Amino acid sequence: MKKVLSFVLVVSIFWLPTFVYPQEAPRLPDFKIQQSPKLQTGFVIHGGAGAMRRGSLSPSQEKFYREKLKESLMEGYNALLNGKTSIDAVEVAIKIMEDSPLFNAGKGSVFTANGKNELDASIMDGRTQNAGAVAGLHKVKNPITLARAVMEKSPHVMMIGDGDEKYAEELGITLVPEKYFWTQQRWDSLQKIIKKEKAKKSRKESIESNLQGEFNNKFGTVGAVALDKYGNLAAGTSTGGMTYKKYGRVGDVPVIGAGTYANNVTCAVSATGWGEFFIRLSVARDIASLMEYKNMDVQKAADTVIHKKLQDLGGNGGVIAIDKQGNIGISFNSEGMYRA
Amino acid sequence: MKKVLSFVLVVSIFWLPTFVYPQEAPRLPDFKIQQSPKLQTGFVIHGGAGAMRRGSLSPSQEKFYREKLKESLMEGYNALLNGKTSIDAVEVAIKIMEDSPLFNAGKGSVFTANGKNELDASIMDGRTQNAGAVAGLHKVKNPITLARAVMEKSPHVMMIGDGDEKYAEELGITLVPEKYFWTQQRWDSLQKIIKKEKAKKSRKESIESNLQGEFNNKFGTVGAVALDKYGNLAAGTSTGGMTYKKYGRVGDVPVIGAGTYANNVTCAVSATGWGEFFIRLSVARDIASLMEYKNMDVQKAADTVIHKKLQDLGGNGGVIAIDKQGNIGISFNSEGMYRA
Repeated sequence: MKKVLSFVLVVSIFWLPTFVYPQEAPRLPDFKIQQSPKLQTGFVIHGGAGAMRRGSLSPSQEKFYREKLKESLMEGYNALLNGKTSIDAVEVAIKIMEDSPLFNAGKGSVFTANGKNELDASIMDGRTQNAGAVAGLHKVKNPITLARAVMEKSPHVMMIGDGDEKYAEELGITLVPEKYFWTQQRWDSLQKIIKKEKAKKSRKESIESNLQGEFNNKFGTVGAVALDKYGNLAAGTSTGGMTYKKYGRVGDVPVIGAGTYANNVTCAVSATGWGEFFIRLSVARDIASLMEYKNMDVQKAADTVIHKKLQDLGGNGGVIAIDKQGNIGISFNSEGMYRA
Repeated sequence: MKKVLSFVLVVSIFWLPTFVYPQEAPRLPDFKIQQSPKLQTGFVIHGGAGAMRRGSLSPSQEKFYREKLKESLMEGYNALLNGKTSIDAVEVAIKIMEDSPLFNAGKGSVFTANGKNELDASIMDGRTQNAGAVAGLHKVKNPITLARAVMEKSPHVMMIGDGDEKYAEELGITLVPEKYFWTQQRWDSLQKIIKKEKAKKSRKESIESNLQGEFNNKFGTVGAVALDKYGNLAAGTSTGGMTYKKYGRVGDVPVIGAGTYANNVTCAVSATGWGEFFIRLSVARDIASLMEYKNMDVQKAADTVIHKKLQDLGGNGGVIAIDKQGNIGISFNSEGMYRA
């Protein structure tokens, strides 16, 4: 294991949530990267500590958080080293984050305005350009696994709601009672917002607060992009949406081309941020298009979409991306919100 | 009115459904175009007669079909001439097709495998790049109107299922009992497929037939693209999905960037075809990207995506598009299916 890791370049960008002040632009998601030029494999995950406020994590919680990110990263990366595909690596890494209550995906997902957990996920295979996306789940333990099943075992790409869950059952995918997704921390966050909302009167104010809620609570979205030794790219993303979101609202995560995209010709992308803007801009697909049609490298393409297009539209968030040579692109903005 | 129309170039491409033989590649959707270079407005609709089989329409039905297309076209176009926006024109034209039982959208939508009607729609404003998409509706009379409301009156872009319908109610959008969408013709189509399916044994066969079902029943999707005299583009699409589709399956129509896209910098696009392929390729967004990044004209961009990319992947369908100068692009393939 040690020998293998000696080939590994680890780049960790830590933005300690405990340093974030409420008045400041929230910090960016945790990103950890491992890249092995020799094996031509690469793996990046995002786990989104973005909007956690000062004091919202105790030092011991923070430690758990870092450890879980590391576990997810290593499991995915080891899968690649062991000859598994990029799709395998993406699924295994995201599953670990879905199973942890620390992330806004799977267990630990935030609550909708009516006190439900509603989960979305998607995955895309760069080799075949096949994709699977699921939205509005209430009972599927690992949305990323169902997204993969939709991709591989059905003729469809996108499935939503109850129909989705019936299909999961047919496929033998683990279902859990809705209360499985309940966590005290997320419930408390919902109650706080409900209290604030009650104090407001005008509809306009309420919408604005809702948007702010999106910003503050969306960055827990998790995702991964991978290049395997067979030269194939894959991307996946999973989320619990935003606290106090309208029941039925869907963000960019299950929209192929917005939150997730992969194509061996260009790159694999997973996004996290203000979903509505990511849909309107087809963020993930646009990064690939800039590479394909303008010959940009993956970092420049990601920066162009995030720092120029997303910024101009007033949106907020970031992406992780990897190209077929294993080059990594990471881009995020946060000033945009305060200008919007 | 006559005076105004004298400026209008009317291009009608009729592919008479009654001339289609079951063995032949199904004919393409009806497209009608009106363009007025002087006023710099343009309007195109598709109403999808594509897969109607020989004898499935009587001459009188065919007449109704043509008249309804004409009504939709003229209402949308007159809206533009009267100074309404491209969004207004798109909505009014699509509403007329949704209200008619002749199209696979709104009333007249096909049935899912479990005997339900499940409707999707989306709309996008090229000026603001704002968008609205709705999926999995069972009670909303005009899905395109709800999509517009999501775009204009909510902070969200995409909403699905029950949550969507609750939101429609809040906004005072017309809801109807589910039986409103029931039509004898679509019910009979479902019964025929169910009968065939029962005769089959292997899952593989069933999936293949399902895919074939998609092909045979998807082309009734309706859509419109418009350029108004203010120089703004808009696109909209509405569908009942495919006969015998799995409950919860969503095609390209509510996926912004796949079935619908509009951006004043490039073009407005509405697609009809085998939805899964349109999602995987981000068809509508890709046409815009080819214009933006490769300086292609709208027709060449549409042809590149439909005749090359979609064809290579084995997908099937077509698009209508219009650019900011009022140039129109129409592209569709049908041979691809028989190679798939």
